[in-house]
Amino acid sequence: MKAGAFPVITLLTDFGTADYFVAAVKGVILTINPQVSLVDITHEVPAQDIESGAFMLLTCYRDFPAKTIHVAVVDPGVGSERRGIVVRAGLHYFVGPDNGLFSYICDRESSYEVFQLTEEKYFRPEPSPSFHGRDVFAPVAAALSKGTRPEQFGPRIKDEVRLAPLAPLREQDGSLRGRIIHIDRFGNCITNFTRSEVPDSERVKLLVRRKVIRQFRKFFADEAGAKDELFAIWGSAGFLELSINGGSAANLLRARRGDPVIASV
Amino acid sequence: MKAGAFPVITLLTDFGTADYFVAAVKGVILTINPQVSLVDITHEVPAQDIESGAFMLLTCYRDFPAKTIHVAVVDPGVGSERRGIVVRAGLHYFVGPDNGLFSYICDRESSYEVFQLTEEKYFRPEPSPSFHGRDVFAPVAAALSKGTRPEQFGPRIKDEVRLAPLAPLREQDGSLRGRIIHIDRFGNCITNFTRSEVPDSERVKLLVRRKVIRQFRKFFADEAGAKDELFAIWGSAGFLELSINGGSAANLLRARRGDPVIASV
Amino acid sequence: MKAGAFPVITLLTDFGTADYFVAAVKGVILTINPQVSLVDITHEVPAQDIESGAFMLLTCYRDFPAKTIHVAVVDPGVGSERRGIVVRAGLHYFVGPDNGLFSYICDRESSYEVFQLTEEKYFRPEPSPSFHGRDVFAPVAAALSKGTRPEQFGPRIKDEVRLAPLAPLREQDGSLRGRIIHIDRFGNCITNFTRSEVPDSERVKLLVRRKVIRQFRKFFADEAGAKDELFAIWGSAGFLELSINGGSAANLLRARRGDPVIASV
Repeated sequence: MKAGAFPVITLLTDFGTADYFVAAVKGVILTINPQVSLVDITHEVPAQDIESGAFMLLTCYRDFPAKTIHVAVVDPGVGSERRGIVVRAGLHYFVGPDNGLFSYICDRESSYEVFQLTEEKYFRPEPSPSFHGRDVFAPVAAALSKGTRPEQFGPRIKDEVRLAPLAPLREQDGSLRGRIIHIDRFGNCITNFTRSEVPDSERVKLLVRRKVIRQFRKFFADEAGAKDELFAIWGSAGFLELSINGGSAANLLRARRGDPVIASV
Repeated sequence: MKAGAFPVITLLTDFGTADYFVAAVKGVILTINPQVSLVDITHEVPAQDIESGAFMLLTCYRDFPAKTIHVAVVDPGVGSERRGIVVRAGLHYFVGPDNGLFSYICDRESSYEVFQLTEEKYFRPEPSPSFHGRDVFAPVAAALSKGTRPEQFGPRIKDEVRLAPLAPLREQDGSLRGRIIHIDRFGNCITNFTRSEVPDSERVKLLVRRKVIRQFRKFFADEAGAKDELFAIWGSAGFLELSINGGSAANLLRARRGDPVIASV
Repeated sequence: MKAGAFPVITLLTDFGTADYFVAAVKGVILTINPQVSLVDITHEVPAQDIESGAFMLLTCYRDFPAKTIHVAVVDPGVGSERRGIVVRAGLHYFVGPDNGLFSYICDRESSYEVFQLTEEKYFRPEPSPSFHGRDVFAPVAAALSKGTRPEQFGPRIKDEVRLAPLAPLREQDGSLRGRIIHIDRFGNCITNFTRSEVPDSERVKLLVRRKVIRQFRKFFADEAGAKDELFAIWGSAGFLELSINGGSAANLLRARRGDPVIASV
């Protein structure tokens, strides 16, 4: 890549913020390129939950400037034979383990290329087998931000690990079987339905946790409905969400990530 | 405003840090102005608690450089008819919903002006009805940081939403009725009493949760008092705090935000 | 110090992230030097736990660029007679209270110098007795970042407060008595054993919480052992860790920070 004048590197991990892990990654990057802007996406991905991390990255990577480098580390296989990769997808770059973390992004972007990280000269000497975030991905991202091209880190591969696609499945009766893919801080249940699967959202009927949701709203505050009335709404990341006004839909539904959501018209 | 050479944009929200919300706001800002320094004030304002967010902003905005732009998003009315505003107050700028978030700041600063955000050319196209933080306030703040003047975002208004003033109320018997406005991480109970209401703090008697506090200290560690002895102290943000040394006053008092505190001399 | 072109200031505190404390420190620094890169190490050091903060700083300070300024504030004695200090140790600078926070770093670095902060012209006027992080350490760190030398803040001292050394103790029977010094987000129990005490780590026998650990692994994922099988591993910060694959060793052991760990060969 040609480095931007003000390169941005984002970080998304399951490290939490109580340990030294995130700081170590940032220190390594700043040692190599002190001019980068570091932005935390989140470090609260549930521990070792690749799918959750992949979804979180999908929801916001396009809000960043072109040429942003996204470092994502949710890495249960660290120290094993799993590969490290750098991905060029659309206008963005991604660095992390080859375990599906960038899978949804490759599904969405029309063009992408994946390169395996094999050129050890870009790594820290004697990388810790348990902390590739600091010793492999951080220095690779910093090198990218200074102008190293993805091709220089290793060979292009085409068999990168992919997660099952995010999209809901069509059932035999014509309904769509989706799921709750994320529950946000406010208790909104984000599903994997997008406008392409549910174009006629105002007539959709949703079945979740034995409850039927027929109400679709355009705004959270758009009606004086009962306080505990569940409704569906297009969320800000482009997915259908289950919500109530002024409360937690997840608590009301006792919903958990992964719970099925059936949509029919 | 004339943009500073190193513009600072702060963020204060109730978004938490486990979702993509904060990252999306930062990405939008950096896309428009990659040179800004982004500083998180906090993202742990209790969900939709405008008063708490307003207080938190009040405690620290003056510690930032002149011309800092403070973006605050605690926004239960997002998507409704509530207005967006930019405020010029003292040497600082504020961007967010017109719901009282900047109310205490306007109470404190001798001069301020409020402008409604109506010029949609500064917004992202088709703003999400549930995420004005990303689609309205972030691009407006970024434009401000690049030199757009507050006047350019829309008309000046004088009927902005105001919270009840922060100051305690004078009772008929001459006592002052205040309240616990915030409980900090260490269990200190921050009240809304300032030196202007309690000039003679060393003689003040405080009644809270059926306990009387007569001891006033200048430092946390200034006496070898009993470990569970409650005392009052001027806190670092200029408000009277209820504390114990080496423990949580809030736990001892079983206090909660909003509990009344009566001061008499 | 000679200021770097892109100075980095790190922050490590027990302030949490829900209050205004961290933001106030950052605001003061940026007011004095808007060009610094601010990096949070963590703000979740257990409240007033100096040893824990000292360990956390030890694990990552060397990952930052030479001349980085590390501000650490875990400060139960704030407002008392405890001194403030700036430390030059190895290639780094440290600013904070003289209570042992930088003790492990001084133990590790072959050369270091400690200076007491007495020159009040570098402080904010009328520092709050409860918030030296904002009013003393922040402006001192910012001045350092602009080129003020450590010597200029006050006299060199040699009686700085030191914690008991981090290293395990040799028992009469030849075994080593260490302890769990930190439990990380994944439930790994980090001990205070380093390679210099346990050079022959693959033959070591560890006794902790009445369990014997004989298995030593090189990678987390390097064997298809039983899921709940405890093992020891060299962690990424150079300390021996107690772990299980895909779970929390701390939960399995019901371990807490401070629990003894006995190593024998």
